Amino acid sequence: MIWTVYLSGEIHSDWREQIQQGAAALDLPIEFTSPVTDHASSDDIGNVLSTDDKPFWKDHQSARINSIRTQTQIQAADVVVVRFGDKYKQWNAAFDAGYAAAMGTPYITLHGEDIIHPLKEVDAAALAWAQTPEQVVEILKYVTTKK
Amino acid sequence: MIWTVYLSGEIHSDWREQIQQGAAALDLPIEFTSPVTDHASSDDIGNVLSTDDKPFWKDHQSARINSIRTQTQIQAADVVVVRFGDKYKQWNAAFDAGYAAAMGTPYITLHGEDIIHPLKEVDAAALAWAQTPEQVVEILKYVTTKK
Amino acid sequence: MIWTVYLSGEIHSDWREQIQQGAAALDLPIEFTSPVTDHASSDDIGNVLSTDDKPFWKDHQSARINSIRTQTQIQAADVVVVRFGDKYKQWNAAFDAGYAAAMGTPYITLHGEDIIHPLKEVDAAALAWAQTPEQVVEILKYVTTKK
Amino acid sequence: MIWTVYLSGEIHSDWREQIQQGAAALDLPIEFTSPVTDHASSDDIGNVLSTDDKPFWKDHQSARINSIRTQTQIQAADVVVVRFGDKYKQWNAAFDAGYAAAMGTPYITLHGEDIIHPLKEVDAAALAWAQTPEQVVEILKYVTTKK
Amino acid sequence: MIWTVYLSGEIHSDWREQIQQGAAALDLPIEFTSPVTDHASSDDIGNVLSTDDKPFWKDHQSARINSIRTQTQIQAADVVVVRFGDKYKQWNAAFDAGYAAAMGTPYITLHGEDIIHPLKEVDAAALAWAQTPEQVVEILKYVTTKK
Amino acid sequence: MIWTVYLSGEIHSDWREQIQQGAAALDLPIEFTSPVTDHASSDDIGNVLSTDDKPFWKDHQSARINSIRTQTQIQAADVVVVRFGDKYKQWNAAFDAGYAAAMGTPYITLHGEDIIHPLKEVDAAALAWAQTPEQVVEILKYVTTKK
Amino acid sequence: MIWTVYLSGEIHSDWREQIQQGAAALDLPIEFTSPVTDHASSDDIGNVLSTDDKPFWKDHQSARINSIRTQTQIQAADVVVVRFGDKYKQWNAAFDAGYAAAMGTPYITLHGEDIIHPLKEVDAAALAWAQTPEQVVEILKYVTTKK
Amino acid sequence: MIWTVYLSGEIHSDWREQIQQGAAALDLPIEFTSPVTDHASSDDIGNVLSTDDKPFWKDHQSARINSIRTQTQIQAADVVVVRFGDKYKQWNAAFDAGYAAAMGTPYITLHGEDIIHPLKEVDAAALAWAQTPEQVVEILKYVTTKK
Repeated sequence: MIWTVYLSGEIHSDWREQIQQGAAALDLPIEFTSPVTDHASSDDIGNVLSTDDKPFWKDHQSARINSIRTQTQIQAADVVVVRFGDKYKQWNAAFDAGYAAAMGTPYITLHGEDIIHPLKEVDAAALAWAQTPEQVVEILKYVTTKK
Repeated sequence: MIWTVYLSGEIHSDWREQIQQGAAALDLPIEFTSPVTDHASSDDIGNVLSTDDKPFWKDHQSARINSIRTQTQIQAADVVVVRFGDKYKQWNAAFDAGYAAAMGTPYITLHGEDIIHPLKEVDAAALAWAQTPEQVVEILKYVTTKK
Repeated sequence: MIWTVYLSGEIHSDWREQIQQGAAALDLPIEFTSPVTDHASSDDIGNVLSTDDKPFWKDHQSARINSIRTQTQIQAADVVVVRFGDKYKQWNAAFDAGYAAAMGTPYITLHGEDIIHPLKEVDAAALAWAQTPEQVVEILKYVTTKK
Repeated sequence: MIWTVYLSGEIHSDWREQIQQGAAALDLPIEFTSPVTDHASSDDIGNVLSTDDKPFWKDHQSARINSIRTQTQIQAADVVVVRFGDKYKQWNAAFDAGYAAAMGTPYITLHGEDIIHPLKEVDAAALAWAQTPEQVVEILKYVTTKK
Repeated sequence: MIWTVYLSGEIHSDWREQIQQGAAALDLPIEFTSPVTDHASSDDIGNVLSTDDKPFWKDHQSARINSIRTQTQIQAADVVVVRFGDKYKQWNAAFDAGYAAAMGTPYITLHGEDIIHPLKEVDAAALAWAQTPEQVVEILKYVTTKK
Repeated sequence: MIWTVYLSGEIHSDWREQIQQGAAALDLPIEFTSPVTDHASSDDIGNVLSTDDKPFWKDHQSARINSIRTQTQIQAADVVVVRFGDKYKQWNAAFDAGYAAAMGTPYITLHGEDIIHPLKEVDAAALAWAQTPEQVVEILKYVTTKK
Repeated sequence: MIWTVYLSGEIHSDWREQIQQGAAALDLPIEFTSPVTDHASSDDIGNVLSTDDKPFWKDHQSARINSIRTQTQIQAADVVVVRFGDKYKQWNAAFDAGYAAAMGTPYITLHGEDIIHPLKEVDAAALAWAQTPEQVVEILKYVTTKK
Repeated sequence: MIWTVYLSGEIHSDWREQIQQGAAALDLPIEFTSPVTDHASSDDIGNVLSTDDKPFWKDHQSARINSIRTQTQIQAADVVVVRFGDKYKQWNAAFDAGYAAAMGTPYITLHGEDIIHPLKEVDAAALAWAQTPEQVVEILKYVTTKK
């Protein structure tokens, strides 16, 4: 079985690379998927369709195109990893966690100890809370390959 | 038809009361449901079961009990209103929006213009974005009673 | 058992009233639901939220608010009646039929013989094609009350 | 991941070819599916089973055979593109859009500015509205391959 | 809790009355539903819509109208009782059993010992096989009222 | 796309071979599945587990083992063909049709004109009624390969 | 909102009465449902249909009749409480927990500290673990009535 | 078709190896999946994330990580085999059976005659009860390869 793991959340650090490299080093049977992580492209993709809209509609148009990808990939995922960093609101990460929870898709949260309390509802429906990418790799190794 | 409307999110302002009073004044056919909004009770309900756990497990235990209520009420709701205020992380509100989206339950967001950009993914799946409780009441009046 | 019947489609003739009066005259155990049929209100409800948008976004905003009602009512319906008149595009009526078909909700189409061919895909998934409101009432009487 | 994209709607112009050639030129990881676009075959396939029926039943029989294909392909699609041209009723296109909406399958509409208003309900549930096949290819490129 | 029990199958004997009277005598908390059991009405209801069709389409039209009722009532049922008599093909009864099985709705078969073998697949998915209406009433009494 | 087609029903004639050979001759992209069609094996498979049970339980045990296969294959099928011959009760064929109908899986019935009336409910939910294996092959060719 | 709470598991102590009386004393908006708790009736209900079967089939027949009730009530429940006592295998209780988990229905386990380890998989999917009926009542009070 | 069979339950005997070797010897088209069967690893995997928790939370953390694997594999399985041995509580095995039952996934139980009575609810929803691994292999051979 090849597992599909969707990497949701923070786009300002290299946590995705760390997990993917860790999994590759162990040759884990995992295909990773992700949202578009190039911030400017993600914000402006809607301009392909129309420009000079009000800020709300500009964002709306881009966000809906992005959701074609994210919604499809989360639905196809066996496991979702949701990363919360120490900056920005990251409401999209919490949104993805809620989406996964409602679909019954297992997810793992990845965040520091300082934000345990505000994330308690998101962690309540997670099957694991990790603090480092290494821990996520450990869990994925165990889940996908342990005899 | 009696509509069930779940009021998710911010617990530090009186937006729930404004919407409920507005709906009551118009005699709208709506039953409102909500999470527990007494912050201390919500944080400490887990102590009914056990105490002196580590902070993560204390929060976990309380959050899971709270989710018995919130998950059931969101599943039973015809419409969800999700409020984002100008303070705190409010990841639970974004989580509820994702949950509603995955279930195909219509939801309305309620927030100021200053947080349009970080909420673009949450708004992308919403059926309306309102800036005031009065607007929410207007929409609910239209949806539930307009001939 | 009280049946819920959603009346979808054309808003420029009195077919809804004919069906509802016919059912009332027979005292059928049916609760009827409908989209907002006041054309101007339906087009402009989005102005409650914001104005002076481009035509696409103005329509989009109103249409999404209307779908809070229509989507909820179609999901709650036991039977849907979809009316196609001889004017306008009425793509929303065909959209509702597709929505009902995908949910496995039985629907009846109501239209003249002159548009059999362009409606063949919509009729293919319908459980009955009626040409007059009287026929629809006959079917509803049979379905809901015949021993 | 190989994406499956269903191309629904208008059969009187070459928009399908434009999208498929555009995607092939970019080597996008997409498998396209479509209804039968040979109008005469599509209308007459029912004759394999029986002939000399009344017009309604002739159309019905052909349309139901066609739906074996279209229903299966829409259910298997990751994304649906729905094209509305400037001629004919195209109720089947709106039907497919409603079907996709009810299943939670993302869809993109493709139509000119002149029919924004009658398509507002169909566009309301779409994740993007494109005016040209080139724009659709742009979106598909972004969604399926952008890092 | 009021239970809904759908009575499917044979229309040439009074087994429905026996079960309903037995349940009424015991004051069981059950609402019974049934297909239309007036054979002539059931065969001819399609004539409301059109006549002089070929035999296949005449039957088709009536059968589809009947399925508006039967499909809705089976979906709403908590328990289905499926009766096979000693005459006729009764394929509709076996169809209803398959429909209930796929939906996960519990059903009870009611038939004599002489047709155990041809009904083995239908009985395999049933939660009980009864030989008399009295046994069905016994089971319903137990299921709905036993402390 | 490789289509999966499940062949349900009569096991006393060679209709399955005719369809499979017809499809093979045309090189159609179809994988066929079937129940076990060796009557004796199908009746006696339960003896692997235990013998000398009463006739009902002997049949029950074998039928339940058979349903591991049939239920799984029907759930995996894109299209089901259901054959009714002129002998025996064939309630299992009607059961499979009901099962497919409830799951929204398209099915084609295959039977002679003489049993149109008793099969009207089963045909009502079918997407095509064929009288010969050749017609089924024609439809499958059209559905799976027509441009 | 009236909540429905299903009480699953141990039938050899009075924990159900304690919870129901506790809830009644507080006038909680809860309707309780339960399996049949009269052990002899539950074991012998199958005798209504047939007797002198082998032990396996005798148990099978009774257990399937019981599941008409239990399956329906668990599906209708908002919350399930699953009690594990200190005697017997109680595999049915664990079965009910798995059933609730797969349906996404919240459940609370009720058991002593001495069986934490063997119940770890069952507790892992529970939203709360209580050790006394009083704690269950506390949680139900909070969930159903707390402002 | 390659079948996926999940082997749930007892980890203290070599029944999994017997079934897998039996299937391999017959070259059956089956891919087997299993929980982690190394008891110590399974109990301690949570230590990757945090240690020195109270016993309940230690078990909880490990069990939730294990459920990432087991829940995903049961959802992906065509057939589940659930083994109950003569030692330990094995509530997790009964939990898996309930989970499979609720999802409509066929399962086979494997246990001795001495525990028929306490397993009657679990067996009631099973499609076969086997007493030896050889019998399971026989059934799998029949289900997956018999013509």
